[in-house]
Amino acid sequence: MKKVMNQPENIVDEMLEGMVQATPNRLRYLKGKGVLVRTDAPVDGKVGLVSGGGSGHEPAHGGFVGRGMLDAAVAGEVFTSPTPDRILEAIKAVDSGKGVLCIVKNYTGDVLNFDMAAELAAAEGIQVEQVVVNDDVAVEDSTHTTGRRGIAGTVFVHKIAGAKADQGASLEEVKRVAEKGIRRIRSMGVALTPCTLPEAGKPSFTLEEDEIEIGIGIHGEPGVERTKLLSASALTRTLADRIYDDLPYRAGDRVAVMVNGMGSTPLMELNVIHKEFITYLNEKQNQVVDSWVGEYMTSLDMAGFSLTLFQLDEELESLLAHPVDTMAVRFGK
Amino acid sequence: MKKVMNQPENIVDEMLEGMVQATPNRLRYLKGKGVLVRTDAPVDGKVGLVSGGGSGHEPAHGGFVGRGMLDAAVAGEVFTSPTPDRILEAIKAVDSGKGVLCIVKNYTGDVLNFDMAAELAAAEGIQVEQVVVNDDVAVEDSTHTTGRRGIAGTVFVHKIAGAKADQGASLEEVKRVAEKGIRRIRSMGVALTPCTLPEAGKPSFTLEEDEIEIGIGIHGEPGVERTKLLSASALTRTLADRIYDDLPYRAGDRVAVMVNGMGSTPLMELNVIHKEFITYLNEKQNQVVDSWVGEYMTSLDMAGFSLTLFQLDEELESLLAHPVDTMAVRFGK
Repeated sequence: MKKVMNQPENIVDEMLEGMVQATPNRLRYLKGKGVLVRTDAPVDGKVGLVSGGGSGHEPAHGGFVGRGMLDAAVAGEVFTSPTPDRILEAIKAVDSGKGVLCIVKNYTGDVLNFDMAAELAAAEGIQVEQVVVNDDVAVEDSTHTTGRRGIAGTVFVHKIAGAKADQGASLEEVKRVAEKGIRRIRSMGVALTPCTLPEAGKPSFTLEEDEIEIGIGIHGEPGVERTKLLSASALTRTLADRIYDDLPYRAGDRVAVMVNGMGSTPLMELNVIHKEFITYLNEKQNQVVDSWVGEYMTSLDMAGFSLTLFQLDEELESLLAHPVDTMAVRFGK
Repeated sequence: MKKVMNQPENIVDEMLEGMVQATPNRLRYLKGKGVLVRTDAPVDGKVGLVSGGGSGHEPAHGGFVGRGMLDAAVAGEVFTSPTPDRILEAIKAVDSGKGVLCIVKNYTGDVLNFDMAAELAAAEGIQVEQVVVNDDVAVEDSTHTTGRRGIAGTVFVHKIAGAKADQGASLEEVKRVAEKGIRRIRSMGVALTPCTLPEAGKPSFTLEEDEIEIGIGIHGEPGVERTKLLSASALTRTLADRIYDDLPYRAGDRVAVMVNGMGSTPLMELNVIHKEFITYLNEKQNQVVDSWVGEYMTSLDMAGFSLTLFQLDEELESLLAHPVDTMAVRFGK
């Protein structure tokens, strides 16, 4: 696969530079640390929010740094957890004295490194709490995971925790809404093509021209089934059934949905899938109050998508609608 | 190439449904007409703005409908100009009595059909003006064009004309700023892979695994040169030189830039390219006051990107910063 890059080993650093140059008023780059921080961090009287993980999932996580979402994002190398010392730098950069919540996707390396960073921060007198997102219903354990993987639903957790923190809530309260969100969010993905790591130059796995893999992870981890390419309608229903029955969601639930592109699936197709997902949820008698359609948690240049369903209550619906101003998500006053 | 779709002949209609379902408060769909309209159109005392063209360029043009940009977007079938009667429906839906400006990309079919629609509207007593965007410096004539093609720079024209109209300017004034913008905007693109039309199922042309085509159009029209894949730095400079010398831009110019993905080029790569473009412009002693990095004018699932450079003056810079609220572009108060 062709990639536009310079030296593969510099791609993460150059990308982060490019992101900051696009919004210099919003982002500051801790050069050599892989950390993007809000220019106004630490924000007085506000709980700090940190997320991150391996690179290759853009706009995650740097695209979600800004008012109403994250205060900092830590980027590791491609598909590689950031080291504890880098996470510690992010925590220190955003702590205003009110404590810091780390939002971690459930991968063994990420959980370990964020844990270690939290201990280091505690030793410096910073109060750190952590939540672990595990929204992927496809598999229980996987290549890099014990338990379920964290995928695109993580972005909804950023949104509601970010809103709560923006409202001045305590660390305990911000953690509470994040955990409530995690209990109510489920996702599942499908790959049409593999992804290619910059340094490898070759796809991480292969799929035949008429073949797809259902339940795949965001690093190309195996899914649950290889099958022939299905219609948008059949494919959406296959994923949606698995997601819906898992919680389970119920008729009458007010929900938010995300149709997340994996990196090289055009908006045209994502919108067709969104239409099918809405049709499905209407049949189930759910009211969709918010739809996010686009690229939020990608897997390099993989073609494919994931669906996410979020069961709301009054508090979560209000937090989802709270104003936000980041590179990748912006709305409100 | 694999696509997630149902019947290919329904893909445009289903996509438009999906877009409206994602933002029901913002968009209304004139079913059977391929027209997306602001829910509050026609807006009293405001010039109406209409754009459109063939589908397959998402988020163009429906993603730019909303306060501060377009009032309506007309979608034709994939890579096919919308018919005059559909354009007429869009014009009628947005005319508040203050007239309508159509922003047309320079393709023979589009120009012809928008012309015809303007005549039909005039016969119904609606004042219609038209501007034609031709920002692509790659080639003078092409498969579907006499003169230069209109590509991603068109989105900057939507932005400044939309801002001027939002400020209550007259049709004459809105047209004047659109034309001033067009004179100062230049773009050029490159393809790493071809795109595949939904009904065709096969790529529209072929490129070898290590080959790219410089100067390609957004419908896979031929470019100026096939070459081996270059580094991000060398490729950015190749395009930027052609763009820069064409106007020509000058040291000291304040500029806005766009790094536009063609459909399946990841944000990681677009941000690396952005960094290179900024480095180039800093060397030229230009101040970059606004950067748009992402997908604005795609070509189905083509991998590649285009660069756009916009020479600002005080008026244009202020219009570019005017608040906007659309699916694809949102910022400000």
